[in-house]
Amino acid sequence: MPPGEAFAAVARGCSPIARTEIVPLRTALGRVLASDVAASETLPAFARSTMDGYAVRAADTHGASEQSPAYLRLVDDVPTAVVPRRPIGPREAARIHTGAMIPPGADAVVMVEDTNLHPVPVGDAEVEILAAAAPGENVLTVGEDIRAGACAVPAGRRLRAADLGGFAALGITRVQVAAQPRVAILSTGDEVVPASAAPGPAQVRDVNATTIAAIVERAGGVAVAHGIAADSTLMLERTARAALDDADALVISAGSSVSVRDLTAEAIGALGAPGVLVHGIAIKPGKPTVLARCGGKPVVGLPGNPASALVVAWRIVRPLVRVLAGERIDDDGLGDERELAAVLDVAVPSRPGREDYVPCTLARDGAGHLRATPVFGASNLIFTLVRADALIAIPFDRSGVAAGETVRVIVP
Amino acid sequence: MPPGEAFAAVARGCSPIARTEIVPLRTALGRVLASDVAASETLPAFARSTMDGYAVRAADTHGASEQSPAYLRLVDDVPTAVVPRRPIGPREAARIHTGAMIPPGADAVVMVEDTNLHPVPVGDAEVEILAAAAPGENVLTVGEDIRAGACAVPAGRRLRAADLGGFAALGITRVQVAAQPRVAILSTGDEVVPASAAPGPAQVRDVNATTIAAIVERAGGVAVAHGIAADSTLMLERTARAALDDADALVISAGSSVSVRDLTAEAIGALGAPGVLVHGIAIKPGKPTVLARCGGKPVVGLPGNPASALVVAWRIVRPLVRVLAGERIDDDGLGDERELAAVLDVAVPSRPGREDYVPCTLARDGAGHLRATPVFGASNLIFTLVRADALIAIPFDRSGVAAGETVRVIVP
Repeated sequence: MPPGEAFAAVARGCSPIARTEIVPLRTALGRVLASDVAASETLPAFARSTMDGYAVRAADTHGASEQSPAYLRLVDDVPTAVVPRRPIGPREAARIHTGAMIPPGADAVVMVEDTNLHPVPVGDAEVEILAAAAPGENVLTVGEDIRAGACAVPAGRRLRAADLGGFAALGITRVQVAAQPRVAILSTGDEVVPASAAPGPAQVRDVNATTIAAIVERAGGVAVAHGIAADSTLMLERTARAALDDADALVISAGSSVSVRDLTAEAIGALGAPGVLVHGIAIKPGKPTVLARCGGKPVVGLPGNPASALVVAWRIVRPLVRVLAGERIDDDGLGDERELAAVLDVAVPSRPGREDYVPCTLARDGAGHLRATPVFGASNLIFTLVRADALIAIPFDRSGVAAGETVRVIVP
Repeated sequence: MPPGEAFAAVARGCSPIARTEIVPLRTALGRVLASDVAASETLPAFARSTMDGYAVRAADTHGASEQSPAYLRLVDDVPTAVVPRRPIGPREAARIHTGAMIPPGADAVVMVEDTNLHPVPVGDAEVEILAAAAPGENVLTVGEDIRAGACAVPAGRRLRAADLGGFAALGITRVQVAAQPRVAILSTGDEVVPASAAPGPAQVRDVNATTIAAIVERAGGVAVAHGIAADSTLMLERTARAALDDADALVISAGSSVSVRDLTAEAIGALGAPGVLVHGIAIKPGKPTVLARCGGKPVVGLPGNPASALVVAWRIVRPLVRVLAGERIDDDGLGDERELAAVLDVAVPSRPGREDYVPCTLARDGAGHLRATPVFGASNLIFTLVRADALIAIPFDRSGVAAGETVRVIVP
């Protein structure tokens, strides 16, 4: 099954988690907004100047130019943070600073570069206006940024710097966000020992628990470590059930051999209806992936090979975490801010009907464009990925990509 | 001055901070490795099978095919986590599982799909080999992943999932990383009140402290809030000096009016040698930016306008934080994993000799390519950025970008 369809099959039946938290702005970055937040007030609340210059009635500057200036009487000086003392009448102007309140009567600001000031010995100074101003010129009008009652930030938005800035502008200093999805991570394989252990003969350390946890956390989830389960259906099922009970999703890295994978699929199938939905996806590396939904929660059985596990965690687990957090994403799970586009240096063959992920290095050329150079070789080794900068994503329907083509690269 | 040159001018004289921390793998994601980490052992430590199948001497399968199979005597069964009981002699084979140790004598694995097993009533079974195996086929040899003493992960690497996986494989569960750079953030402007306050007439809330802090944190730094300084050179200089003393860098959002900006530049100039290096950069929005280095620490004076402050924080402050953390980045501060490429829907004009950042929405077309549609209008409003998905980055030397061109977009 194509990875996009496989992802959609699992994601469709999974509801975003209902738990929410109220957090201050300073910890809200990257969290997913739980419900629409409406603007509590209108911004700007008062008309403001966007320039240093002179507040005027636009009509008084009609036809003004360097050859034929308009002359206005300077009647006030309006700094920021101050309410103007008086309105602007016909043929009057007030000096005004960027951000200051536009006096009543005025409807435009002539920037200081288009004026000359003529002090006079007695009485008000005269401002020479060298350019006509249209009504509203250099003025932020009331409500131009946002109006009270309008949706300020929509539910499902993963909050960015600008969103937090919008909240600050409105005086909203705490927001309700989705709780971070809890993803239980369980490894299997008789030959696998914890990263902290010294492997015996014929044993290896668990790599996948670490990489999957990193991808879960980068996606905004909380990784809940459940160690390494014994290779028996009964024990695995028991451990997996306990892990899933305590979490919103379960990821099992399923040992390397076919027998262990079958055992994992069997244990997953027993966790709840509808059980296993997909057995094998058209992706390289990572084909022997099991996708299930058990009691409304997604369960993913990843291949034991570290590179395969990492690629499928990126392609499937990462968007699942985003869906669980209530983020709005594309149906096929693609589309992510941690993707780049790069021009391919040499051709990369592929097989249509399969998404291929090929390790590559990245470099910028003279024109500033990223160039991707595939790293061929043993793609099932963790240090092949450590040495790579990124992975070239070759789409499902392509039989390879030519040198010079622009490709999508992911940076797990 | 072009933004790239301006960044380089400040970054050149700033040393990465010397403070380091030792952290467990589970909190090391996104931190910058403080020094090269060498592999403490060789991986794999033993030759392993990458397939379920039969471990053989490759020479014994020479010329084997479906038409003319080779027949080998089955002498052992090697599951994972077990040391093989005996070596493989000529014309012998051992059943082997993915990840299991290759028995001495064997140098290849024939995958199970290329074999038939013929049980015999008495004695050893016979394996029919239907395809020749080359020496090393389906075998991970000792040291193929990494050799003891080789550099596993280099200093200056911002740690990714794969890097943490590499450490786990080696049994390295704690790593030394650079301390997170501390960036003091200070706002100015008589009209500015904290986000938590109710603005009086002619006052507005501080947006920039929030957005700058978000960009600093996203870049791996710690934002240290210093509130809003009074608009007097003496007070501002005093507050700024205290803020910088306690941090690795200082960012002042410099109020909107020219007089306040001049005052900020003056205060920055007094903080230490060499002082202000750049006054004004060729970027839109964000031209009135001040860049300084005071006593070896970078100091940035951002425009007061929220959109300008956010763009320049992204373009200048973000790479400065990365440099302070010891990350290796390009001299001009460009190049980032939070950049996408998108095809432009409609032409966007620009002026050569200036980097332009234009708010846009993003959507994927049928072929999966991102399309960027510029959001024209008041680009100096915070909610223009809230409503946008990203910003189109128009390079310094371009006089606009045509519809259909691929452009770089940033996602602050």
